[in-house]
Amino acid sequence: MTIAVLPALARPLLEPHLPKGVEARWFASKADAFDFAPDAEIGWLDMYDKAEMAEAISRATNLKWLTSVYAGVDGMPLDLLRERGTVVTNGAGINALTIAEYVVMGMLTVAKGYDDVVRARDRHEWLQDSPGKIELAGSKALLLGAGAIGTLVRTRLEAFDIDVVTVRRTPGAGEIGPKDWRPRLGEFDWIILAVPATPDTDGMIGAAELAAMKSSAMIVNVARGTVIDQDALIAALTDKRIAAAFLDVTTPEPLPLEHPLWALPNAHLTMHLSGRAQNKMFVRAAERFIANLGRWQRGESLQHQVDLTLGY
Amino acid sequence: MTIAVLPALARPLLEPHLPKGVEARWFASKADAFDFAPDAEIGWLDMYDKAEMAEAISRATNLKWLTSVYAGVDGMPLDLLRERGTVVTNGAGINALTIAEYVVMGMLTVAKGYDDVVRARDRHEWLQDSPGKIELAGSKALLLGAGAIGTLVRTRLEAFDIDVVTVRRTPGAGEIGPKDWRPRLGEFDWIILAVPATPDTDGMIGAAELAAMKSSAMIVNVARGTVIDQDALIAALTDKRIAAAFLDVTTPEPLPLEHPLWALPNAHLTMHLSGRAQNKMFVRAAERFIANLGRWQRGESLQHQVDLTLGY
Repeated sequence: MTIAVLPALARPLLEPHLPKGVEARWFASKADAFDFAPDAEIGWLDMYDKAEMAEAISRATNLKWLTSVYAGVDGMPLDLLRERGTVVTNGAGINALTIAEYVVMGMLTVAKGYDDVVRARDRHEWLQDSPGKIELAGSKALLLGAGAIGTLVRTRLEAFDIDVVTVRRTPGAGEIGPKDWRPRLGEFDWIILAVPATPDTDGMIGAAELAAMKSSAMIVNVARGTVIDQDALIAALTDKRIAAAFLDVTTPEPLPLEHPLWALPNAHLTMHLSGRAQNKMFVRAAERFIANLGRWQRGESLQHQVDLTLGY
Repeated sequence: MTIAVLPALARPLLEPHLPKGVEARWFASKADAFDFAPDAEIGWLDMYDKAEMAEAISRATNLKWLTSVYAGVDGMPLDLLRERGTVVTNGAGINALTIAEYVVMGMLTVAKGYDDVVRARDRHEWLQDSPGKIELAGSKALLLGAGAIGTLVRTRLEAFDIDVVTVRRTPGAGEIGPKDWRPRLGEFDWIILAVPATPDTDGMIGAAELAAMKSSAMIVNVARGTVIDQDALIAALTDKRIAAAFLDVTTPEPLPLEHPLWALPNAHLTMHLSGRAQNKMFVRAAERFIANLGRWQRGESLQHQVDLTLGY
C-alpha cells in the first residue's frame, strides 16, 4: 500500500479518483501534517506558512514524490530533497492564466489611474478628468520570463498593440538573450517580471537597473519580491525616478502594517492574489495530480517535474 | 474670409496649421462662444455643459459646418442643424482606442474584485484571498455596438480567449442581427454596450432584458446612460439578479451626491472618464480638423460626417 498525505481541502476532488493501492491520509492542520509526514511515500504538503511546510517536508523521511500546487518551490528545502532523491512536481502553469490576466489588469489600472477612480467613487465624487492618461497602444514592454505566464502575457499584450520584447535563454523572433536586456532598459515603458525565483534572478532589478529605466517606466512584478532590490525600488518610487510599480509580490509577505511600501501612492500592492483570482486552481491541480498518480503507479516519469538544481 | 470659431484650448495645435482664407476666433469661455457664434461659418463649439453648447450652436445662425471632438452628438440640437442644412462632423474613433482599453480594464477589475483590493491596500490590510475569482478565459461576451470601439474591444477580448458575439445590422461571421440577441441573453457572462445614443438604442436594456440575463452576468456600459433603463438596473443590482455593472456613463451626469447608484457596491462608476484616459485626444482631433478644413476649402466632402437622421 502506497501512503499519500494529501490536503483535506482537496479531498472532494481527489477521493473519487484515487486508484487502488493508494491509501490517503487527509491533513487539515499543521499538527496533522507533522503527524502523517513520516509515513508518506507521496506528499502534497502545501501550507500557507512556508516555514511550517518546510518542517513537514523535513519530517517526511520516506517521501519519494512531493507535489505542490504552487509554481515556485523556493519555500521548499531543496538541498534536503535533492539529497534524499525525492521527485518534486509543481503547479507551474496552473495559475498562469489568471496571473496573466492580472498582469494586464495591473497595467491598465496603473495606466488609467484606476485606484484614484475607486477612491473618488467611494467619496461620491464625480471626477472631471482621468487621473491616468496613458494608452497601452503604442507602448513598449520588456517581458522577463518566457514560461507559461510570460507566454500568455505576451499574446494578450500584443492584442493591445504593445511592442513586447521577451527575454529568453535561447532567443527566437521578438526575443533577446539574458545578457542583452540591461543595455536596452531605457527603451521600455513597462518592465514585467514573471521569472522563477532562483539564485540567478535574485535581485536582478537593483539600483543600477532602476536608474537605467525611463522616469515614466512602470514595473509589474508577479514573480517574487526577492527579484527586486526592494529598498532600491522604494527609493526610486519615492523620488519618482520611475513612475509606478504594480507589485503582486513583496518582501516579506504579508507586508507588516508599518512597512514603507504601504505609504507610497505609486506602489500598487495586490497581496500575492494574482494566482488566487480564479476558482479552478484546485480542480486543475487535482486533475494534474491524479494523472501523475497514474504515471507513478505505472512507473512512468512524472509531468511538471522540477529541476532541483535550477529551482524550477 | 471664412470665420471659424474654435476652442482656445486647441489653439497651440491648430494655429500653426490654419490655411490662408480662414480667420480663427478662439473662445475660452461660454461668453466668448455666445459672442462669436453668430459670425461663424465653421464652428468647433464643444462645451462641457451640453445645454450651453446647444445654446451656442443655436446662436450660430450662419454656421455651415459644425465639428466636435465627441463621438456622441446627442447633446446637439439635431433638428435645428438638419433644418439649417449644417454639415456635422464628429470625433467617432478618436477616443475609441482608450475606451476599448477601458472596457477591458473594467472587465478585469470586476472579475478580480480589484476595487476591494484597492480598499484593503488603503487600510494596509494584507488580504489572504482574492475578492474576485472570475477568469476572463472561457467566458462569453455579447458586444452591442460594431463601430470603432466595438471593433477594438473585440480583438482585445479574443486575445483573452473570450467567446465574443457582436451584434451588427448586417451580421457577418461571429456576429448576429439586431433581432437575434434578446432571445440569447441568458448565454452571456458579459453584456458590453458600445452603441451610439439614438432613439433605437434608448432604453434597449430594460427590465425584461435584465431578467433574461444570468444572475452571474456583468454589464459594461461605455455608450450612454440612457441606453439602460437605470431604475431597472438599480433594482437588478440591489437584488443581485445580475452580478455587477461597470458604468462609465450614467443618467444624469454628473451623478448627484445622493444618487442611489453610489450606494451599490456592485455598481462600478467611472464618471465618463474612459475617453479621457489618454493625452492624444486633442492632437488627434486637431489633425482630423485640419485635414477636413483642407477638404472644405477644396469643396470636397468631409470625413466622419454625421447622419443627422440616424444620429451617428
